[in-house]
Amino acid sequence: MKSISEFLQTGDWKGEKHVPVINVPENIKADEEFEIKVSVGDEIKHPNKVEHHIAWIKVFFHPEGSKFPVEIGTYNFSAHGEGSIVNEPHVTTKVTLNKSGTIYALSYCNLHGLWENSKEITVK
Amino acid sequence: MKSISEFLQTGDWKGEKHVPVINVPENIKADEEFEIKVSVGDEIKHPNKVEHHIAWIKVFFHPEGSKFPVEIGTYNFSAHGEGSIVNEPHVTTKVTLNKSGTIYALSYCNLHGLWENSKEITVK
Amino acid sequence: MKSISEFLQTGDWKGEKHVPVINVPENIKADEEFEIKVSVGDEIKHPNKVEHHIAWIKVFFHPEGSKFPVEIGTYNFSAHGEGSIVNEPHVTTKVTLNKSGTIYALSYCNLHGLWENSKEITVK
Amino acid sequence: MKSISEFLQTGDWKGEKHVPVINVPENIKADEEFEIKVSVGDEIKHPNKVEHHIAWIKVFFHPEGSKFPVEIGTYNFSAHGEGSIVNEPHVTTKVTLNKSGTIYALSYCNLHGLWENSKEITVK
Ligand SMILES: [Fe+3]
Ligand SMILES: [Fe+3]
Ligand SMILES: [Fe+3]
Ligand SMILES: [Fe+3]
Repeated sequence: MKSISEFLQTGDWKGEKHVPVINVPENIKADEEFEIKVSVGDEIKHPNKVEHHIAWIKVFFHPEGSKFPVEIGTYNFSAHGEGSIVNEPHVTTKVTLNKSGTIYALSYCNLHGLWENSKEITVK
Repeated sequence: MKSISEFLQTGDWKGEKHVPVINVPENIKADEEFEIKVSVGDEIKHPNKVEHHIAWIKVFFHPEGSKFPVEIGTYNFSAHGEGSIVNEPHVTTKVTLNKSGTIYALSYCNLHGLWENSKEITVK
Repeated sequence: MKSISEFLQTGDWKGEKHVPVINVPENIKADEEFEIKVSVGDEIKHPNKVEHHIAWIKVFFHPEGSKFPVEIGTYNFSAHGEGSIVNEPHVTTKVTLNKSGTIYALSYCNLHGLWENSKEITVK
Repeated sequence: MKSISEFLQTGDWKGEKHVPVINVPENIKADEEFEIKVSVGDEIKHPNKVEHHIAWIKVFFHPEGSKFPVEIGTYNFSAHGEGSIVNEPHVTTKVTLNKSGTIYALSYCNLHGLWENSKEITVK
């Protein structure tokens, strides 16, 4: 069977404008709030027009040793020039965890498909 | 015809834990990026469990004099304790505008329905 | 305070292409699956292009006598011509209920804002 | 780098209740509307409660020969027993295409992660 995973693209976000950049502390405390910031186009700006834009960013967390990842949340970017309003592909939210593991970000460009990145996070 | 607007609740967020709190600068510059932060439970924390949680926050902008509001974006909060991961109802994004108008936030609690708030913003 | 409800537009879907059309049985049986179909543009087709399209349809149910409506679900229409793929604003899902009440549909056009409709449903 | 694709599970939907089932015609006509129906739990029903449920189904299309898949749409299932209302993981929508290719469905269980399936479709 064909898998959508064949289309999960990645790369160095400093050279490839589609790759989501994950900003989280390297170390956090169990069950204490911290911020997750994910953005696209930090180094090379991605177009933001109705014809070509980042439509959404999804964030997952995989606690090490677990069988399954858990979705933290999804941001849908809706304004791409309508009424001269533009929503840039930056999203920050707050989270608590109690195990070390991996944050995954998945983003979607309406013309260039699916892109991902990941970052380790350690509970001290 | 019945309207869903009959169910749009609001109130003072200092006394009612469901009301979304909108943080934006009062004055912005045309077409310069600024942050919109919307959160629920700033003063009185809202429960965050699978049985009872804030499911999403939507943000709209209505440019003054326009006939229609434009959706800026939507954040869906997905983790409410699964794998001990909790996504708190806080979301920040970046936006550019070029007209003064009103920001609207709409949020949804899976047990207590729809809540809204609004805030004026002026382009200097 | 200003309310987003000022912008909830409606009308007769036979004359106004934005109004969501709700198809549900008039009578259902408690806790037996039935289909809810909501569509936009049944009589007068709405444009479906990246520049102008129906972005989403939300469906709520308000059990009579309840204080709050419950969100049934949301469909986000994502393809508006990219790769010659077009997702038409039609969505059908399955639901069980056990009280009579009102179905509400809310839809959003990226240029013409928020539109709603409602329909009574009776549990026999 | 770690990839979320390591967690894309699949299997035979007749034996594994999480696998999304894709119903589409094998052959379609270019630019003529057809229905895509995706559901979870056709053979073995999946639980549908706030503690354990299918949260969403995403549908993509990859036109053969193209570099990128295009998202058709996403359905978020919101009611899992609130007010005795249950939204079953079934969604049908309407689409037009003009190239043969592959439909992908991706679904998410809040406890058991990401599941996928795919189906070929031929434009005659
Ligand atoms: Fe792109
Ligand atoms: Fe609540
Ligand atoms: Fe329109
Ligand atoms: Fe499951």
